[in-house]
Amino acid sequence: MKYNILVGQSGGPSVAINASLAGLIKSASNNININNIYGAKNGIKGVLCDNIIKLNDFINDTNLNILCQTPSMALGSCRYKLSSDVYPKIKDIFLKYNIKYFFYIGGNDSMDTVLKLDNYFKDNLIDIKCIGIPKTIDNDLTITDHTPGYGSSAKYISNTVNEIIMDSQIYPIKSVTIVEVMGRNSGFLTLAGALPFFLGNNTPHIIAIPEVPFDEDNFINKIVSIQNNHNNIICVISEGIKNIHGEYIGESTKSGKKDIFGHSYLSGVGKYLENLVSSIIGCKVRSIELNVMQRCSSHIASKTDIEEAFKIGEKAIEFALNGKTGITLVYNRISNNPYKIEIGYVDVAEVANQVKTVPSKWFELDNDSVQSEICEYLLPLIKGDISHMQDENGFPIYIKLN
Amino acid sequence: MKYNILVGQSGGPSVAINASLAGLIKSASNNININNIYGAKNGIKGVLCDNIIKLNDFINDTNLNILCQTPSMALGSCRYKLSSDVYPKIKDIFLKYNIKYFFYIGGNDSMDTVLKLDNYFKDNLIDIKCIGIPKTIDNDLTITDHTPGYGSSAKYISNTVNEIIMDSQIYPIKSVTIVEVMGRNSGFLTLAGALPFFLGNNTPHIIAIPEVPFDEDNFINKIVSIQNNHNNIICVISEGIKNIHGEYIGESTKSGKKDIFGHSYLSGVGKYLENLVSSIIGCKVRSIELNVMQRCSSHIASKTDIEEAFKIGEKAIEFALNGKTGITLVYNRISNNPYKIEIGYVDVAEVANQVKTVPSKWFELDNDSVQSEICEYLLPLIKGDISHMQDENGFPIYIKLN
Repeated sequence: MKYNILVGQSGGPSVAINASLAGLIKSASNNININNIYGAKNGIKGVLCDNIIKLNDFINDTNLNILCQTPSMALGSCRYKLSSDVYPKIKDIFLKYNIKYFFYIGGNDSMDTVLKLDNYFKDNLIDIKCIGIPKTIDNDLTITDHTPGYGSSAKYISNTVNEIIMDSQIYPIKSVTIVEVMGRNSGFLTLAGALPFFLGNNTPHIIAIPEVPFDEDNFINKIVSIQNNHNNIICVISEGIKNIHGEYIGESTKSGKKDIFGHSYLSGVGKYLENLVSSIIGCKVRSIELNVMQRCSSHIASKTDIEEAFKIGEKAIEFALNGKTGITLVYNRISNNPYKIEIGYVDVAEVANQVKTVPSKWFELDNDSVQSEICEYLLPLIKGDISHMQDENGFPIYIKLN
Repeated sequence: MKYNILVGQSGGPSVAINASLAGLIKSASNNININNIYGAKNGIKGVLCDNIIKLNDFINDTNLNILCQTPSMALGSCRYKLSSDVYPKIKDIFLKYNIKYFFYIGGNDSMDTVLKLDNYFKDNLIDIKCIGIPKTIDNDLTITDHTPGYGSSAKYISNTVNEIIMDSQIYPIKSVTIVEVMGRNSGFLTLAGALPFFLGNNTPHIIAIPEVPFDEDNFINKIVSIQNNHNNIICVISEGIKNIHGEYIGESTKSGKKDIFGHSYLSGVGKYLENLVSSIIGCKVRSIELNVMQRCSSHIASKTDIEEAFKIGEKAIEFALNGKTGITLVYNRISNNPYKIEIGYVDVAEVANQVKTVPSKWFELDNDSVQSEICEYLLPLIKGDISHMQDENGFPIYIKLN
């Protein structure tokens, strides 16, 4: 007997999430127990709207390779907090398409969806397996060594900060450059921006992550102190830095809007600190928001990241067909020298709605052994370049699933 | 008799300006008539402060290759408007170092410096040749087909906008994404951002350059109209767009500060339009400033650009040793198929303080033949990738001349 599968993508985009989709499609297409491969447009919202497409015709090596290099989310996304009143509707759609296996590629909010659906199907004795495939540039999922997508974003950020350092040092005048990096609660992306420092440069001079309370007076004093010896100061700052009371820095100047999950929309802490430095110190100051480029710059994707993301998609099929449900996949790091991971799984309940943060043993960023540990953790993840398939103009070819 | 040469860099940084320096150093080191190769730190300001370094020891192929891939300006820069009272001081320094040839790599303001010094030396019968080597990401120097540095910035911008387009299309809701590109008076960089449209995509939907008056009402109406058929609208906007009265859009909300040449510091037209769209239309809207990344992203440098920039540096030595002075070098495009340029020169007076803008025949961006012409002009300039020398961590190696 053959079964149909359904896959959806959810949450924010990344450079690697389509590689996981490609790996899943590839593995499913090779599996004799799988018949139709369906994709839900815009995640679980697409399920609710019966916006479901058949992906079987899409399967060939060229298309899958293009999918691997395509940033963002080929199936589209949603941010949708599942409530119990829609479970029956979802079940009806699943039954309509004869879905036996459901795969959801996303971050911690998406794992919440996997958990709820799995519980609902179990409670109602419906045999539909629900599998979560992790994805988030923030690297903030628990248990897994790192998340698919993090390596490529880390690669973009570390290289770009390195270039910004060069750019900022050309004038013999006092200047402060503030680079704002994504990361609401976790500083992993900001640590990538600090890589030039960990690797032996004297910059970035100031590094601020959400896990460590940020004091504006200390920040200003530190700049003034560094300016005694350096003209051009570089700061790498998480968007989510907070003061000792847990309030976002500069929050009073922000919109105050919240998203569907109750997260505050963050923007502008860089601009806020720019204005602060400008008004108190008065030197040249510039803030730079790496914005969506840090999650969509496939032109500098990490080969390690893309290859691992593909494999985790493949592996999801294997676990599902072995009867697993209510799980999410994880990377287990087996060794650092040589770098090696294995792909395993845990109960999705262990991951859903949890946030991994930078371990406190890493807070002393000036400490040599901390720097070594971070480098040992981070460097393998950003390793290698992928060679993009290009059109006749030298432009990378991307794919959308419509 | 052997002579000494002096080289300086000036104005804003680019990805290619160090390649021109490398070409010049390489060619000078091979020339039997040249003895010492001096570099002025921070351009003409370094001359005035006697901050001059000898570059002879630096010459080997490895260092020159690293210099070619190093973004920003290895000798540092300045923004300094030359006044006649410092000419004697400059002359004294030149004589102290026995400088016979002076090379200045920069944009139109830097060409003003070359012109003034050349006139001064001629008027005072001092035999010092002054040569300008063009550089500007804006592509706004007259006469030359294009400027060194433009191709790499255009490559970053076109690829990044292409990625942002993918990123912006994942949610099935109305959204507007505004990408702000550098370009105070010339829209060439913005045209690079529009390349995906010229190459057959339906995005970016809205393209605005400084050469064409911008009407805020039209902008809003156009968005509303496009929203009838498309959820996710992408706009690529020059920082220097102006209304019909020649006033910068959103200028009232800006700082009003001016730089040493009297140019207004521009920032935030993207943010201004974001707020405009948000308040009038009320949909999701995001503005993205490509900021300094568009001028320092050496990781996506154009091979064509870097190679041409190297050659224009080499050629500067040849022209100078042939007795030319008061000139600036230019690229002459010989053919498009195959793409071929020759490097020539013109009187620097023809270029200094002039601004090249997008030709008016290109203003009809929806016109197919205009799109073909722009592609024919632009595509060869962004062609090819350079392979970066890396350290053991996979990080590109950069060099500074201290």
